[in-house]
Amino acid sequence: MSPSPLPFHVQRLQKPDGRELSLYGLEPIELASDVPSPSPDPVDARPLMRWHPLRGEWVMYAAHRLGRTFLPPPEYNPLAPTSDPEHPTELPRGRYDIAVFDNRFPSLTLNAPDAPEVPGTAQRPGVGKCEVVVFSQNAAGRLADLSEAQLALLLGVWAERTAVLGDTGKIRSVLAFENRGVEVGVTLHHPHGQLYAYDHVPPVQATMLAQAKQWRTEHGEAWLSSFVAAEREAGVRVLRDEGHALSVVPPFARYTYETWVVPARPVGLLSQLAPDETLAFARVLKDALLRLDALFGVRMPYLLTVHQAPVGEAPDPDFPLHIEIYPYLRAPGRLKFLAGTEQGAGEFANDKFPEVSARELREVALENL
Amino acid sequence: MSPSPLPFHVQRLQKPDGRELSLYGLEPIELASDVPSPSPDPVDARPLMRWHPLRGEWVMYAAHRLGRTFLPPPEYNPLAPTSDPEHPTELPRGRYDIAVFDNRFPSLTLNAPDAPEVPGTAQRPGVGKCEVVVFSQNAAGRLADLSEAQLALLLGVWAERTAVLGDTGKIRSVLAFENRGVEVGVTLHHPHGQLYAYDHVPPVQATMLAQAKQWRTEHGEAWLSSFVAAEREAGVRVLRDEGHALSVVPPFARYTYETWVVPARPVGLLSQLAPDETLAFARVLKDALLRLDALFGVRMPYLLTVHQAPVGEAPDPDFPLHIEIYPYLRAPGRLKFLAGTEQGAGEFANDKFPEVSARELREVALENL
Repeated sequence: MSPSPLPFHVQRLQKPDGRELSLYGLEPIELASDVPSPSPDPVDARPLMRWHPLRGEWVMYAAHRLGRTFLPPPEYNPLAPTSDPEHPTELPRGRYDIAVFDNRFPSLTLNAPDAPEVPGTAQRPGVGKCEVVVFSQNAAGRLADLSEAQLALLLGVWAERTAVLGDTGKIRSVLAFENRGVEVGVTLHHPHGQLYAYDHVPPVQATMLAQAKQWRTEHGEAWLSSFVAAEREAGVRVLRDEGHALSVVPPFARYTYETWVVPARPVGLLSQLAPDETLAFARVLKDALLRLDALFGVRMPYLLTVHQAPVGEAPDPDFPLHIEIYPYLRAPGRLKFLAGTEQGAGEFANDKFPEVSARELREVALENL
Repeated sequence: MSPSPLPFHVQRLQKPDGRELSLYGLEPIELASDVPSPSPDPVDARPLMRWHPLRGEWVMYAAHRLGRTFLPPPEYNPLAPTSDPEHPTELPRGRYDIAVFDNRFPSLTLNAPDAPEVPGTAQRPGVGKCEVVVFSQNAAGRLADLSEAQLALLLGVWAERTAVLGDTGKIRSVLAFENRGVEVGVTLHHPHGQLYAYDHVPPVQATMLAQAKQWRTEHGEAWLSSFVAAEREAGVRVLRDEGHALSVVPPFARYTYETWVVPARPVGLLSQLAPDETLAFARVLKDALLRLDALFGVRMPYLLTVHQAPVGEAPDPDFPLHIEIYPYLRAPGRLKFLAGTEQGAGEFANDKFPEVSARELREVALENL
């Protein structure tokens, strides 16, 4: 039984400045205006990377990013469909649900040029890709306001982009994420996320894969299988269980209301989920996002990251596909900041037990959802 | 030639609630009031740790921390010497420069009790120690306002605490840090830092040690020796070189104005610095802090971490002692937030080249220092 993706429509386009744009929809795509770009100038990105010899990680440098200007009219929204041709946005008018385009100010590009020599340090081109994912044409909405079908479409879009990027032959790992909230510096409130595609497997994904492989060796099964079975048996940290997917405050949560969405069947990529699994995953994700906003009655600032197996080769059967949501509020009005122990030692201090956080999130009044 | 520490005076005391207090001074310590505590209640901390199976790191849970209350009079400063016995602070009046005491709300304690059983997860006692280090009796001052002798004393205090904690037989790694700025949630502006002492070597220090050992294998010398030689030869990233110590924006800086203070002679612990090396280190540290505040003419919010070799055994000759300062402003009024790539993949994106940041920091007008 091989899973097949949920059907959706896609149209590939090119912006006036040369960047790629893909439109995705549950219905056939219909364009009602030309494809715009805020500026006709081609992107001139020369990102590069340097190796951090003590932390063992790459650092990306993208000097062109600092020049990014925001001097539009106050109501200008670059992620909305263009309504005034005098002020073109990133997106055309028309019928589509989700749009993906190349970031104008990328930290990584597929055609990064050779780096100039700098005294006393080695560097290499910042090969990779940075894309923007616009979740909806509704500028005032939230990710959680998408219907289950639209959220399933988004999971399909993330899966498709991951496959497309893997097929370039230059990409080894794709991270989809949403960073939300003025509290964490987000100035653009139109619901959107980003994709970072790396030409190597970054430290977090490399560690996850190594740890999961060790788990398999020690326990004889996929880490995700053990995790789902243990959480279902314990019961105290599960927020919602839809059979094919569930949400959990993991027993090792680093953020106070950290929530994970996991598939019940262990796979490494979103593209490996069957349609009914994708729909269940979407339903659980929507439920988790609604609970986080209902918890304190405010839009919870958060970082959402999608963890998938390395690409560019057959997906590793041990990498556990999952979504992690880090809510930044640890109490009403109180943000979690990463300070000494988190940044200086790599270990988190959490003031609340995951079982308590899970109970609070489970008991959120349903009428608030 | 064995280095010997700079001379200083120390007095060990106990607070009414049982916590330890140590006072340090360049002059002999003189107490002018009883040793106070904000509350007579003994600390009831039951921290514990759980293992993050995918990131391979411990997470600390300290539920008692959430109960910490701040309902004092508006001008109450718990880190100032007690002036009104009706509102006791953490510190007595008297002649001393620096004070170190047990945190009332620790994430780790030496006598952490066994953890209760929780369904579906293993946990262990949160063994370790959390201390507060008050840099000065001057509530309005900055770390950079300390004299070179006082900063050298602080280096000596950090060294002494590291040794004392290592001698407990329960501690393997000590992290000293200062987190500064309302921008990053700091509510107590009296100049102070913290110490976290772990019963294991945390991920950051473990990686640094492993990377430094690999460097020795591949290059035949200590990483710190190679680094200092390369930076001196390149010249473009050094902020100040005092012979025995220097400050550098490292070529792999993750934060825009990230600044490191390193000794010229490779050692693993502050206690291994000779007096003249300690004084040079203090001079360079003061200069770096002054430059960061002068850069934009505001008190730069930052995290400062002191990286030292594991303790509880002979210091490893490969671990590179150094201080890292992460300034949170990447431009005037613009904070750096850790978002998708930093938290989700473990790799930083920096908008400015270290050589450019270093030039800006070198060119800060001297009259602003």
